[in-house]
Amino acid sequence: MARLVMKFGGTSVADIERIRNVALHVKRETDAGHEVVVVVSAMAGTTNQLINWTREAATIHDAREYDVVVASGEQVTAGLLAITLQGMGIAARSWLGWQLPLNTDEVHGSARITSIEGDDLMDRLSQGQVAVVAGFQGIGPDRRITTLGRGGSDTSAVALAAAVHADRCDIYTDVNGVYTTDPRIVAKARKLDRVSYEEMLEMASLGAKVLQTRSVETAMIHGVQLQVRSSFDEPQSLAPTDMSQVGPGTLVCDEDEIMEQQIVSGIAYSKDEAKVTLIKVADKPGVAANIFGPLADASINVDMIVQNVSDDGTHTDLTFTVPNDDLPRALKVIEAAKDEIAYRDLVGSQDVVKVSVIGVGMRSHAGVAAQMFKALAEKGINIQAITTSEIKVSILIDAAYTELAIRALHTAYGLDGD
Amino acid sequence: MARLVMKFGGTSVADIERIRNVALHVKRETDAGHEVVVVVSAMAGTTNQLINWTREAATIHDAREYDVVVASGEQVTAGLLAITLQGMGIAARSWLGWQLPLNTDEVHGSARITSIEGDDLMDRLSQGQVAVVAGFQGIGPDRRITTLGRGGSDTSAVALAAAVHADRCDIYTDVNGVYTTDPRIVAKARKLDRVSYEEMLEMASLGAKVLQTRSVETAMIHGVQLQVRSSFDEPQSLAPTDMSQVGPGTLVCDEDEIMEQQIVSGIAYSKDEAKVTLIKVADKPGVAANIFGPLADASINVDMIVQNVSDDGTHTDLTFTVPNDDLPRALKVIEAAKDEIAYRDLVGSQDVVKVSVIGVGMRSHAGVAAQMFKALAEKGINIQAITTSEIKVSILIDAAYTELAIRALHTAYGLDGD
Repeated sequence: MARLVMKFGGTSVADIERIRNVALHVKRETDAGHEVVVVVSAMAGTTNQLINWTREAATIHDAREYDVVVASGEQVTAGLLAITLQGMGIAARSWLGWQLPLNTDEVHGSARITSIEGDDLMDRLSQGQVAVVAGFQGIGPDRRITTLGRGGSDTSAVALAAAVHADRCDIYTDVNGVYTTDPRIVAKARKLDRVSYEEMLEMASLGAKVLQTRSVETAMIHGVQLQVRSSFDEPQSLAPTDMSQVGPGTLVCDEDEIMEQQIVSGIAYSKDEAKVTLIKVADKPGVAANIFGPLADASINVDMIVQNVSDDGTHTDLTFTVPNDDLPRALKVIEAAKDEIAYRDLVGSQDVVKVSVIGVGMRSHAGVAAQMFKALAEKGINIQAITTSEIKVSILIDAAYTELAIRALHTAYGLDGD
Repeated sequence: MARLVMKFGGTSVADIERIRNVALHVKRETDAGHEVVVVVSAMAGTTNQLINWTREAATIHDAREYDVVVASGEQVTAGLLAITLQGMGIAARSWLGWQLPLNTDEVHGSARITSIEGDDLMDRLSQGQVAVVAGFQGIGPDRRITTLGRGGSDTSAVALAAAVHADRCDIYTDVNGVYTTDPRIVAKARKLDRVSYEEMLEMASLGAKVLQTRSVETAMIHGVQLQVRSSFDEPQSLAPTDMSQVGPGTLVCDEDEIMEQQIVSGIAYSKDEAKVTLIKVADKPGVAANIFGPLADASINVDMIVQNVSDDGTHTDLTFTVPNDDLPRALKVIEAAKDEIAYRDLVGSQDVVKVSVIGVGMRSHAGVAAQMFKALAEKGINIQAITTSEIKVSILIDAAYTELAIRALHTAYGLDGD
C-alpha cells in the first residue's frame, strides 16, 4: 500500500468525459489499495475566460479580487471530480485551499505556500477516503483566497505530497515523461527513466515545459519523489502503482537514486530570448553599473552577458540577453541612459535561440563544454554568447540553426536512442 | 445617510456590461453618502450550466459537492463587481459565505441561515467600503460550503440587512415593483406603493414570482423593510435614496405602515396545480388517512381538499390538488393503495388553475369570498375547489377561464387603475 498524490492539469479535466477518465485513473490506484490525494486544475479554457473578465471589468484590478474570481475554476473541477468518484462507488470529498488550509503568504496572484495542515487529510486517507484538492489556490494571512500563479497546481500537488508524507507525487500530463530533448526536433530523443531534481530544475527554467520550476524546487526541498506520466493512456489498461518497480513515466528524484548517471542528461532550448548589443561602449569602471542598474530598476531580467576584450583600450562591445517580451522596454531604458553609458550604437535582435546541455555528471567530468563547441563548429554554427553553471552549459546562436544544433549535440553526447 | 442592502439577480449581472450598470446603481447611492452592501447572484445561465455538470458527473450526487460546484457562480460575480467598483474609484471588497461568515444549518442544497456575524462588515461600511457579498451561499456546521436553494440570494440579502441593521433592503429585479396582478393579463393592473409582509408572502406562495417566500418570511421576522425595484432603469438618471420619501418601487413592510389599506391588495394565480379526484370512495372513518398518509410518505404536498357530502350515506367523491410535477407520482401512490382506500375511479387533470385574492383587510371585512363567487358566477365560471385563510381566498377553476376570472375579479375588487 502506498500513499499517492495524483495531479491532473486543465486539458485532462476539460469536460465531464475527461473528468470520468481521471476518475478511472484514481480508481485503478484505490482498487489496488493505495491512498490517493488528487489535485486538479480548472477545466481547460476556464481560467483564461475568468482572467479576461477581470481585465474587462477594470484594466487595473485588485489582485485579491482577481484571486476570488480565478480560484473558482479549480473549485468547480474539484466538486465535479468528487461527484464522479462517488458515482463509481469511491468515497471522496473535495477540499478547497481555505478548507485544508493551504496557507500562503500575502502576495495575491502569485502567492507562495507557507504551510499545509495535513493531519485531517491523513486521517481521512487512512479511512479510505480520496481527497480531491482544488489546485492553484490557498488562503492568505488576510483570510482571503490566494492563487499561486501559472502552473501553481503542480506546486500545490508537490506541497501536499510533502504535507501528507506521500510516497510519490504523480504529475499526469499530455506527454509520457521527460525526454533527452524535444522529440518534435530529434526523432531519436529518449524518454528518461529518472532525472535528478537539479537537472529537471535547469530543464524547466531553460525551456522544457513539462514541469514548473517552482514545483521542482519544492519537490527538491522536501525530497518528494515526482513522476511525470501521461493522462491520455487508457486508465484501466495500466498497471496500478507498484513502488518496488520503475514507473511508466519519468521519476524526478535525488541524484543518489540514479544508478547510471549520464554526463549529459538532456538538451533544452528556449526561443524566448532577445539579444541586445551595445557597440563601442567606453571601457571604464562603472559602465556595467550604468547599463544594468536601470534595467534592474525596470525589473528586466538580464540573462547572458558577454563583454569583449577592448581592442583599443578605450572602447568595447557588450552583448546581453533579455526575455523576448522585454526587448522593446530594454531598448528604451538603454536609450534613455545613453548619456551616462556613452555608446555608439545599440542593436536589438530576436533571431536568437538559447541551447543548453544539462547534466549533473558535468561536476566530475571536464571537457563537456569543449565537446559542445567542437560539435557546433563542425556544423559551422557560430556561438554568440556562453554561460555556464555547475551542471549546464548554455550558448546563444542564430535561431535558424536551432534544429541543426540540437541534433548535433544530441548525437555528440551519445543521447540518441534506437 | 442611510445603510442600504442592494440585491441584483442573474439577469442584472449577466455580462461585464451589466455588471458595470449595477456598479453605477451602487455609485449613485455611495455618491449620496449612503453605506452599501451589495448582494449578487451568479451571471445568468451559469448556475444552470454548473447544475447540469453535476448531473452529468453522476445521476445521484452528493449535495455537499453540488454546493461546492454551484456556489462558484456567485463567487465570480462578487469578485468582478468588486473590481468594477474599484475601477470607478469606489472602495469595495468581495465577501464569500464562509468569510462573513454566513452560518447555515447542515442541509446542503437548501440550507437555512442560522446566524450572520455582521460586526466586521459594519466596521468597514462605516469606513466607506462597499461590501460585495456572494449571495445564495453560506458555511455549514461541517465547515463546508452550503447553498440556500433557488432564489436564495434574496434571502441572503434580507438576512444581511437584518445583521447589519440596514435601513432598507432593495431587491433590484426585471420589474419595477409588485402589481395588483399580472400586468400581462390585466392591462389596468396597478403598481402597489406598499404591501404588507403577510400579503407578499401569500402572493409569493400563490404564484407571483417577484420575491421568494423565504426572503419575505425572513424580512417579516426581522422587520426588514424590503423594496422591489427595477435594475433596468438608467442608473444615474434615478434619484439617490431618500429615506423620507416613498421609493420608486414597492415597499414590503408592516401593515401598520400602510395608511390606506385596501380590503384586497392583489390577485395571484398559479398554473402549477393538478387535480386528483377519487370517485365513489367508501365514506367511513380512516379513509382520509388511507389516502393522505401514503401521499405524505411520498413527500407529495397536498394543497386543496374537497370532500362532497355523501349522497347515499356509504360513498362520496373526494378531490384534492398537488403540484403539477407530482401528479404522475400521486396517481401511482393512490393506485398502489387502492385496496385500502376502496374507490371506484381515479381521475387526474392538469387543466386547472388556482386563482387567489389576497388582502389583510379581509380580517375585518366580511363578504370578500361571497363577492368573489358572485363575480365568477356572473361570468359563468364554475368553481371546483375552495380554500381560505385569514387573508386570502383561493379557488380552483378550469384553466381555460384564467384570464377571464382574473380580469373579472380585478374589476370587482376595485383594483383597476387608469
